[in-house]
Amino acid sequence: MRDEFRADLGEVTRMLVSMAEGVRTAMRDATTALLAPDEALAELVIARDAEINATYRLVEDRVYSLLAQQAPVASDLRLVLTALHMAGDLERMGDLADHVARTARRRLPGCAVPEVLTDVFRQMGDIADRVASKIARALSAADAVAAARLEQDDDAMDELHRTLFKIMFSSDWTEGTEAAVDTALLGRFYERYADHAVNVGRHVVFLVTGEALG
Amino acid sequence: MRDEFRADLGEVTRMLVSMAEGVRTAMRDATTALLAPDEALAELVIARDAEINATYRLVEDRVYSLLAQQAPVASDLRLVLTALHMAGDLERMGDLADHVARTARRRLPGCAVPEVLTDVFRQMGDIADRVASKIARALSAADAVAAARLEQDDDAMDELHRTLFKIMFSSDWTEGTEAAVDTALLGRFYERYADHAVNVGRHVVFLVTGEALG
Repeated sequence: MRDEFRADLGEVTRMLVSMAEGVRTAMRDATTALLAPDEALAELVIARDAEINATYRLVEDRVYSLLAQQAPVASDLRLVLTALHMAGDLERMGDLADHVARTARRRLPGCAVPEVLTDVFRQMGDIADRVASKIARALSAADAVAAARLEQDDDAMDELHRTLFKIMFSSDWTEGTEAAVDTALLGRFYERYADHAVNVGRHVVFLVTGEALG
Repeated sequence: MRDEFRADLGEVTRMLVSMAEGVRTAMRDATTALLAPDEALAELVIARDAEINATYRLVEDRVYSLLAQQAPVASDLRLVLTALHMAGDLERMGDLADHVARTARRRLPGCAVPEVLTDVFRQMGDIADRVASKIARALSAADAVAAARLEQDDDAMDELHRTLFKIMFSSDWTEGTEAAVDTALLGRFYERYADHAVNVGRHVVFLVTGEALG
């Protein structure tokens, strides 16, 4: 039974790695589509979100079978429920990449991001890419240290988010209302993406060490 | 064992009803605090979010014990995992009420909502109140019909959300960038609140009928 449990949990973990890689690609492509702007790439991100959601349902089904067939208790049960939580956060990260792509698409053939903010969004995209990459690596290599370092990236993302608002609310802002609204919503999508990544990171630490982060 | 399972699931359901009532009060008070504006009430909403989060953790613990002690299978297992999902959606609804209250607080002593939008936000608050009330009733009375009707409220919320953007993007908009940004974010908080309510509603239907909504 114990070996079977390990094998099943390994399978669930591989699905989580695949989700993490999927949401990484999704946000990277969404950022490129946003800043280029690139219609075909935006459409691709939107279409691929269905795949991420499908993997999420597979994880749910797998967790359900695992619980039903093996009835794990104690720390094994916690591990399974933790995996379910992580899948939920990853699914949400996919949604947020989809939202970025949809925002990009809505302003075509124009660009949703005014030039004065291109650099801030490029940096937000870089951080999003980094956190998703760390999650994928932490999950596949069971690397709790890499996962714990996500908090620093999250702080950097929050700082960029504040910078966005500073630029928008300065008296120099001449980009108008639509651009401000897009910027506010886009900023929130990136910031939430990093928040969910931090949640996943906390869970990786628990998965690896059996101890919750303080 | 079966009686014990029913009793435990009943206890979890009562916790969910309590969460639904909590997030209903939270969003109602947040809307009042936003439109008045009322600093003390905004602070109260923010402080009370910790209680909703604490109830969420209690539900998680209870579900964990239930799984560990009773190892339910088949439809019983689905019911337990469904309850866990619902608790997650309700927790998020509490966060969104908290976000509305924080937005209200950030613009004090001014009002985050320009007068031209007061009526739209009052209507969004009314719908939020209605969906939360339906969830609480559906959960406590196992009323699948009430839960299924949430979709209509959600459509009405989406329509109001579109109205917000129409007003902001019209050439008459003279409220400036900050008000537009607040409005965009607030609109999203209400819209997401209703989305999560619909999720909870779907789950109530499953809890009651054992069948997923199409």
